[in-house]
Amino acid sequence: MNETADIGWAKLDLGRERRTGFPEVVFCQGKPDEALVAICRTLAERQGSVLGTRADARQAELVRGALPGVRYDPVSRILSLPPESPPEPEGLVAVCSAGTADLPVAEEAAQTAEFFAARVERVYDVGVSGLHRLLGRLDDIRRARCVVAVAGMEGALASVVGGLVDVPVVAVPTSVGYGANFQGLSALLSMLNTCANGVATVNIDNGYGAGYLAAQINRLACRGKA
Amino acid sequence: MNETADIGWAKLDLGRERRTGFPEVVFCQGKPDEALVAICRTLAERQGSVLGTRADARQAELVRGALPGVRYDPVSRILSLPPESPPEPEGLVAVCSAGTADLPVAEEAAQTAEFFAARVERVYDVGVSGLHRLLGRLDDIRRARCVVAVAGMEGALASVVGGLVDVPVVAVPTSVGYGANFQGLSALLSMLNTCANGVATVNIDNGYGAGYLAAQINRLACRGKA
Amino acid sequence: MNETADIGWAKLDLGRERRTGFPEVVFCQGKPDEALVAICRTLAERQGSVLGTRADARQAELVRGALPGVRYDPVSRILSLPPESPPEPEGLVAVCSAGTADLPVAEEAAQTAEFFAARVERVYDVGVSGLHRLLGRLDDIRRARCVVAVAGMEGALASVVGGLVDVPVVAVPTSVGYGANFQGLSALLSMLNTCANGVATVNIDNGYGAGYLAAQINRLACRGKA
Amino acid sequence: MNETADIGWAKLDLGRERRTGFPEVVFCQGKPDEALVAICRTLAERQGSVLGTRADARQAELVRGALPGVRYDPVSRILSLPPESPPEPEGLVAVCSAGTADLPVAEEAAQTAEFFAARVERVYDVGVSGLHRLLGRLDDIRRARCVVAVAGMEGALASVVGGLVDVPVVAVPTSVGYGANFQGLSALLSMLNTCANGVATVNIDNGYGAGYLAAQINRLACRGKA
Amino acid sequence: MNETADIGWAKLDLGRERRTGFPEVVFCQGKPDEALVAICRTLAERQGSVLGTRADARQAELVRGALPGVRYDPVSRILSLPPESPPEPEGLVAVCSAGTADLPVAEEAAQTAEFFAARVERVYDVGVSGLHRLLGRLDDIRRARCVVAVAGMEGALASVVGGLVDVPVVAVPTSVGYGANFQGLSALLSMLNTCANGVATVNIDNGYGAGYLAAQINRLACRGKA
Amino acid sequence: MNETADIGWAKLDLGRERRTGFPEVVFCQGKPDEALVAICRTLAERQGSVLGTRADARQAELVRGALPGVRYDPVSRILSLPPESPPEPEGLVAVCSAGTADLPVAEEAAQTAEFFAARVERVYDVGVSGLHRLLGRLDDIRRARCVVAVAGMEGALASVVGGLVDVPVVAVPTSVGYGANFQGLSALLSMLNTCANGVATVNIDNGYGAGYLAAQINRLACRGKA
Amino acid sequence: MNETADIGWAKLDLGRERRTGFPEVVFCQGKPDEALVAICRTLAERQGSVLGTRADARQAELVRGALPGVRYDPVSRILSLPPESPPEPEGLVAVCSAGTADLPVAEEAAQTAEFFAARVERVYDVGVSGLHRLLGRLDDIRRARCVVAVAGMEGALASVVGGLVDVPVVAVPTSVGYGANFQGLSALLSMLNTCANGVATVNIDNGYGAGYLAAQINRLACRGKA
Amino acid sequence: MNETADIGWAKLDLGRERRTGFPEVVFCQGKPDEALVAICRTLAERQGSVLGTRADARQAELVRGALPGVRYDPVSRILSLPPESPPEPEGLVAVCSAGTADLPVAEEAAQTAEFFAARVERVYDVGVSGLHRLLGRLDDIRRARCVVAVAGMEGALASVVGGLVDVPVVAVPTSVGYGANFQGLSALLSMLNTCANGVATVNIDNGYGAGYLAAQINRLACRGKA
Repeated sequence: MNETADIGWAKLDLGRERRTGFPEVVFCQGKPDEALVAICRTLAERQGSVLGTRADARQAELVRGALPGVRYDPVSRILSLPPESPPEPEGLVAVCSAGTADLPVAEEAAQTAEFFAARVERVYDVGVSGLHRLLGRLDDIRRARCVVAVAGMEGALASVVGGLVDVPVVAVPTSVGYGANFQGLSALLSMLNTCANGVATVNIDNGYGAGYLAAQINRLACRGKA
Repeated sequence: MNETADIGWAKLDLGRERRTGFPEVVFCQGKPDEALVAICRTLAERQGSVLGTRADARQAELVRGALPGVRYDPVSRILSLPPESPPEPEGLVAVCSAGTADLPVAEEAAQTAEFFAARVERVYDVGVSGLHRLLGRLDDIRRARCVVAVAGMEGALASVVGGLVDVPVVAVPTSVGYGANFQGLSALLSMLNTCANGVATVNIDNGYGAGYLAAQINRLACRGKA
Repeated sequence: MNETADIGWAKLDLGRERRTGFPEVVFCQGKPDEALVAICRTLAERQGSVLGTRADARQAELVRGALPGVRYDPVSRILSLPPESPPEPEGLVAVCSAGTADLPVAEEAAQTAEFFAARVERVYDVGVSGLHRLLGRLDDIRRARCVVAVAGMEGALASVVGGLVDVPVVAVPTSVGYGANFQGLSALLSMLNTCANGVATVNIDNGYGAGYLAAQINRLACRGKA
Repeated sequence: MNETADIGWAKLDLGRERRTGFPEVVFCQGKPDEALVAICRTLAERQGSVLGTRADARQAELVRGALPGVRYDPVSRILSLPPESPPEPEGLVAVCSAGTADLPVAEEAAQTAEFFAARVERVYDVGVSGLHRLLGRLDDIRRARCVVAVAGMEGALASVVGGLVDVPVVAVPTSVGYGANFQGLSALLSMLNTCANGVATVNIDNGYGAGYLAAQINRLACRGKA
Repeated sequence: MNETADIGWAKLDLGRERRTGFPEVVFCQGKPDEALVAICRTLAERQGSVLGTRADARQAELVRGALPGVRYDPVSRILSLPPESPPEPEGLVAVCSAGTADLPVAEEAAQTAEFFAARVERVYDVGVSGLHRLLGRLDDIRRARCVVAVAGMEGALASVVGGLVDVPVVAVPTSVGYGANFQGLSALLSMLNTCANGVATVNIDNGYGAGYLAAQINRLACRGKA
Repeated sequence: MNETADIGWAKLDLGRERRTGFPEVVFCQGKPDEALVAICRTLAERQGSVLGTRADARQAELVRGALPGVRYDPVSRILSLPPESPPEPEGLVAVCSAGTADLPVAEEAAQTAEFFAARVERVYDVGVSGLHRLLGRLDDIRRARCVVAVAGMEGALASVVGGLVDVPVVAVPTSVGYGANFQGLSALLSMLNTCANGVATVNIDNGYGAGYLAAQINRLACRGKA
Repeated sequence: MNETADIGWAKLDLGRERRTGFPEVVFCQGKPDEALVAICRTLAERQGSVLGTRADARQAELVRGALPGVRYDPVSRILSLPPESPPEPEGLVAVCSAGTADLPVAEEAAQTAEFFAARVERVYDVGVSGLHRLLGRLDDIRRARCVVAVAGMEGALASVVGGLVDVPVVAVPTSVGYGANFQGLSALLSMLNTCANGVATVNIDNGYGAGYLAAQINRLACRGKA
Repeated sequence: MNETADIGWAKLDLGRERRTGFPEVVFCQGKPDEALVAICRTLAERQGSVLGTRADARQAELVRGALPGVRYDPVSRILSLPPESPPEPEGLVAVCSAGTADLPVAEEAAQTAEFFAARVERVYDVGVSGLHRLLGRLDDIRRARCVVAVAGMEGALASVVGGLVDVPVVAVPTSVGYGANFQGLSALLSMLNTCANGVATVNIDNGYGAGYLAAQINRLACRGKA
């Protein structure tokens, strides 16, 4: 069976689901219109579902023209065509975020994890300068199989959360801030230098990557290794 | 019960095992001699085991003077006093490394994971410029619940491995290299910008952090969430 | 013979073809309209051919107004007036690229090499996170006299390709990516730190520079040194 | 009256105490031996007290040869000759630090503030990965007129403390850490990007500067503005 | 009493005034319209006053639609609803700035300090390349309980002022400049490396942070610690 | 045939010569003594020749103890055991360097190219601040099939040479310099931003990489593609 | 006499001409319209001449509305009102530039020097990749009392010129380029690391600063020190 | 006449004095012993004088063995053999420095200028945090034809001096400082971003370069252009 669909614009990796357990995903930003539509159509036909990240509203309209069942969320910029019979959500991923401006990245993480069958608890606006907000949600966070910590500016949330839980924390620095933030560098370095254990970091603003990894860990915790 | 042991030099976090499932660990580098011995002695008494990272040979001798059962590995620079009846190793963590100079970091990851009860498969010297070496070990890697990918220079190993497995990959950039490597920056940025899914990154040369996280994921995959 | 054409706006280096074997080329981006037209017209008259890089559609229209035979490719942003009797393509340059977003840079490299008389094989969308795509095209790549490897994000393609071939690899980092990509810095550092032999790097997004160098090497391999 | 003592090696600013309320201080590191002794001797004679920072043990011996009353603390590297009748300590400055390795910088801050007549409360080893340690000392911290927060690695302590108190927090990033810490850059950027109010930052490892500023604020809070 | 107002968009920290003496403030930039209005309305109701920073004219109009008493200053971009009976201004904060382009940041600092009940003296356009301008205002500056020094480019103002006064100087680097200014990095590094005592630095362009801290110090100098 | 020799310390890639035309090379710096000797011995037995780079004098002695025929050059730090009947040198590679301090890197390039059968012309100490030195050697340079340009500080040599020849220029930035040189960054950026055509860059101080690539191009120019 | 004109918007330094020999100059970019007009009007009245840099066309129109004699050059973005009887040009400043895109910065330098009474020779488009263009103008350059060297990309022009003349060279890096140019950093570092003597550097794109300094040196060479 | 002395180790540029008015100078640091002696001997014979910079005491001894008349100053690390009948010092260069730790760089500048026949006034330890020290020496500074401003840390001295004089200021950032000084980067950026006119900058710690340029300007001011 040919696992690569060569559609001129791109070589779609249809073997990904077999190899990794999760289907191919589309990074929409910057894709030419025709390519985007062709890719989504092919994935819908061959995979039965589509997840597109970093899509703008115009792209969403375009894809919906070709695939009417597609949904679009302007906050997370996620475009999705769920499978016909989506799996039951399982386990629990907690997505924590520091400030309201981190919401788009947090939602990208949350909705990605949900697309990949994780149940998700949102714990938003719990930045460390008002610690009682975070401590007030600690029980919700501690029930999770994996925690995603999303923060810009000084990115301290990941370290504080990391010291409070017994499961992996996926840290997502965001580009929220200004000045010596240097487009997310401050939060990125903070998270890489965390004094807490069990924390690893993904790229700045990479909510998708964190959601994927959290879903993978959550699935392992629910099902073990096949 | 007082979960903090205040020994003057430091406040030892004895509640860590209860909170996180893994005991307190000692970062030896730069600790004054007296402090190091006092900390190790207290942990041995209160936790029944000690894991010390980044210890040099002189420090190891010193600690062994106070705690004769302590072992020391000069490659990983790990100093350890295992618990009296260590748990049976479980699951599988694969630790892959790119070059021979990455060995100390890879061993720090591997021995940390082993200390935290994970079974470990070592897959060393499989850098991407000789791809057949990696592909020849693929079956071993694919059996793991979590993969640690250790690489300096251009750090490409994490992306290649990430595309071949269905479990989380913890990427560890090392400071191995020279010139435009900038003490590990090149590998760090590579890993953060990986085009593969399911990859997260820890600090440069942080084998311990990767081993801890891998053990955490492995335990979740074996036992689920308590 | 005066080898410099001083046209007020610029001093055109008409001796370049004699000195280097390849004619003067125009970097269009940012050139004032009048200057661009004057330069292209002079080159067409004195050299008999024009190659313009980084041209936008408006500039292409403008030049076409003065030189009707000019062609324009919006993907590579190359504007060209081929010589009346173009030389037969010779040898083989393989241009490999990692993702669809790298296409403009890859095409700039490919079309530059073609303008300078190299035969070109395009091997696109073969990023290392789906290694089978690259391995499936290995025979095509191995026939080349020189390989151009175009990649953004972590830029691992250059190292992987470098380990598989016996000819020079010209690595082109692209600014494709976001966050800790820092406008191409991650791919640039990756490629400079490659663990593979026979790899050298040009500036970020410099498809033209890579295509030129690849054509130069290809010509040496076909004709030897004059 | 001549307020500058020109001793060949340096121009000592004897008007500083009149202008700023605090006497001239000596940064010992890198001073030639003769210069250091001459400066300390002159200050002892003209000011009646000496505070020297970043002195090593050999320098301390040297100065003690000339000024037998001088004391030296190897942890803070502070060398001092207190005035004959030192002022009564007043107010309260809390010096908090994250880890044991931050001790030298924290002590430099604490002893500087004490030299300038502030009462000091030390709250050490209260890094955010074990939050209960910090929260357990909150009452001590909240009594202070000014808080100094000393932390390396991700430097999150400053933000957490900043959200818990109603007085200024002087943040001191330290160079403690490794890898993507980049000699203190991570903690520095964290502190500059703090989401907490009332926090300002001094140079990396600049315990002296923080102690000085804290003493200044403490004095204002105790005495108001003259 | 519930000190957190959870209004869906955000968790408003109504306990802040009790904990820190100053009420919650709104960073307007980037907030969605509905969220901004909801937050301002809630704060007006629960706190009796609103301070919003980094607001543009459109946002100001919007908020004024909901809260007619709101004022807006386009230079400082501050939007404010003062309390019904504002406290009498007390003490003195001097806000110094180097050039005319630093005015917006200086005004943000000045108006923030005024909102928090400090009397403010503005000392503008006194950059160090024309030293007589600064020296001519020295008496005004020396009356202050705290000085804010705002400067872009080489940021030397903070050091010069720091050597002339006996109270804390809060340094605010601005992004004013071009080229090797790197968006404020030059002024930031200058201020962090000041050779003057009693100087601490806030983030680039963070006039609000400096005004807050200066008001806090000024209040301590006027009232002492409660 | 097993092309990987697994000697515990490392997996030697004995298939490299078949795949790339050049044998496996040893980067000596940082290798443990036993590993270095074992690797050299294995390569001598299986490949019939050894090239070791970045070796210090002690390592050279050590290897010579095991392989008496080994030669060592302290300037280039190259350790070599040539094959029994070395191939006749062919073609021509010109190695140009800017200053006397660049000599070690230039020699590493030159001797590497010679080991791989290229004839080499050395054109040293021809930095651009005394242009007549370079212009006086132009005929020698123009005879080459490939030019290596080695320079530290501002690295301008690569651009000047690139404009004078019709063959590829491999640019090697060196870490020679101080201050704003930032360990070779200035020369690296210069070379990447060259305004000349046909120039590509290798890592800072990577004389070996440049020599390898130059030999590869020289071989192509002499023999064409097999 | 009051040497500072306080016009609300700014404190104009009317003593500058007396102190430095050259009148106050206006950096137009970013000035509010009213301020710009008020400043220019005041300078025209009090100094008898105006030099404004970085003005856009709209600002020029605006100022011309108030001061009809004002001239504007869109390339250099200089706006000027020469004094009634301008001084005779004296001496010679040579302004050299590497490429056509460096023209605006070169013209800013040239016109600034001319405004300050220097005779100027323009030597444009003489970048080092076509060395004959520069060498062909050497006699013109060598007649100058001071040379300004303007270049982007690798900025090699300053070093090459510096080695050919016996007068000071003021190097101006420009932001011309892309990728690893990092907005002029490559040219800046090149020029700071020049191997030539008698070269000093101003900020990226700072044609004005170079023109001012060149005029100052030229005047010293013509008139000596007053 | 052959103006290049090729002594194996280096090509000495004996035409430099004819071309530039100043003889060839030796950068001693890192030169092999034999090369250093050979170069100094050749220059002594052919030029009649030697100036060596960055020499350590051992190198000075070595050269003195071959050339007994050589002098060595351990502070500036300058080694010199003055010409038999040195020219009368002319004009005036003022060398200002901020702190005592800047002395070696300031002396390198001063002694270089003196070697090239400038009279030099030293104005040391006049950093801007004690402004009265600088203002007290203003008359001395204003007599100079050129001012060298040497400063580390925040490097503010150059801007302050630049605003007070009517001649060129050569700014020399030093690596004096720690933390966010980043080995001189803070002073370098400060000086490049100066708000004063007539200031240009040389490399970090490049006292030699500043002394050379100042002597060149001083000579022009005294003699005009030949």
